[in-house]
Amino acid sequence: MNIRLAAAADDEAIWRILESAFRAGETYPIPRDITRHDALAYWRSPGHAVFVAEDRDTIVGTYYLRANNRGGGAHVANCGYVVAPDAMGKGVARAMCSHSIKEARQRGFRAMQFNFVIASNDRAVRLWQSCGFEIAGRLPEAFEHPGLGPVDAYVMVRKL
Amino acid sequence: MNIRLAAAADDEAIWRILESAFRAGETYPIPRDITRHDALAYWRSPGHAVFVAEDRDTIVGTYYLRANNRGGGAHVANCGYVVAPDAMGKGVARAMCSHSIKEARQRGFRAMQFNFVIASNDRAVRLWQSCGFEIAGRLPEAFEHPGLGPVDAYVMVRKL
Repeated sequence: MNIRLAAAADDEAIWRILESAFRAGETYPIPRDITRHDALAYWRSPGHAVFVAEDRDTIVGTYYLRANNRGGGAHVANCGYVVAPDAMGKGVARAMCSHSIKEARQRGFRAMQFNFVIASNDRAVRLWQSCGFEIAGRLPEAFEHPGLGPVDAYVMVRKL
Repeated sequence: MNIRLAAAADDEAIWRILESAFRAGETYPIPRDITRHDALAYWRSPGHAVFVAEDRDTIVGTYYLRANNRGGGAHVANCGYVVAPDAMGKGVARAMCSHSIKEARQRGFRAMQFNFVIASNDRAVRLWQSCGFEIAGRLPEAFEHPGLGPVDAYVMVRKL
C-alpha cells in the first residue's frame, strides 16, 4: 500500500469513498444527502492536508490531517479517515492512522484528537485504541444513528 | 440586562469585547493577533446566531449559538460567550448562558456541548457546572496558555 498526498485528479475516487460513508450516515456527523461538491469542499477544507491510500492502482482510502484548533490549541492535530467498502478489513485504516501520526509529528503537532468517534462503530474504537488513542470523554447520545437511534460518541486522544 | 440578537451596528461593540479576550489569549484557542475582520468573521460564521447582552445602553457581553455538528450530530448545540472586562463578576455570563439554553431549546436542540473549556479558567468551569454542565472529558495539555504553559481543556455537556 502506498499513501501519498491527494492530487486534484483524485477527486472522483475520493468522492466515491466519501459518498459511501456519508450516504450510510453511521460514522460521520455529515448530512446523508450531502452533494459531491459539498463533500469534497468539506474534505478539502482550507487547512486540511488530504491523503489517499493506494493498493496497486486503486485508491482504497483517504484521510485528512489538520490542526484541531487555532491559537493556543494549534499544537493538537485532528484527522478523519474513510476506507472504501470493498477494502475494509485489510488494514487500510490502520495504515492511514500510522501514516497520519508520522505526518503529524513531522509537522510539529504534539498530540492528536478525534472529536467524534461514534460509540456504535466498535471496529473504529478498538482500532484507535490499538493505535494508542484513549477515550478522553463520552458524549451521551451525541449522535443520531440512522438504524440504532441515539448513540454516544467518544473524544479520543493520544500524545505524539 | 437585556439580551437580544446582534445587529450589524453592534459590530464595533462586539469587536471591543472579542479583542480583549482574544488578545489576552487565555480563554479561547484563537490567534492572539487575529484581526478585527477575522475575529468578527469567526464570531459571525455561517450558522452562528449572535446575541448581545445590554446593560442600559452598553453592550457588556456577546455569545453565539450554533449546531455543534451536522447530520446525525445536529441536535447538539454549541455556544461561545465573552464578557467585557469591566462587566465581569456581575452575572453577565450566567445570564447569557441561561438565555442560550432557552434559545437552544426553542430551536429544537436536545443538548449543549462546550468543546474547549480551558481548565485554568476556574471561574468559567465553576459557572458552567452551576448552570448544569458536567465535565464529559479532559483533554490533557490541549491548550498552550500564554502565562501558564500547557494546561488541560474540558469538554462539558448538558441535556436541554
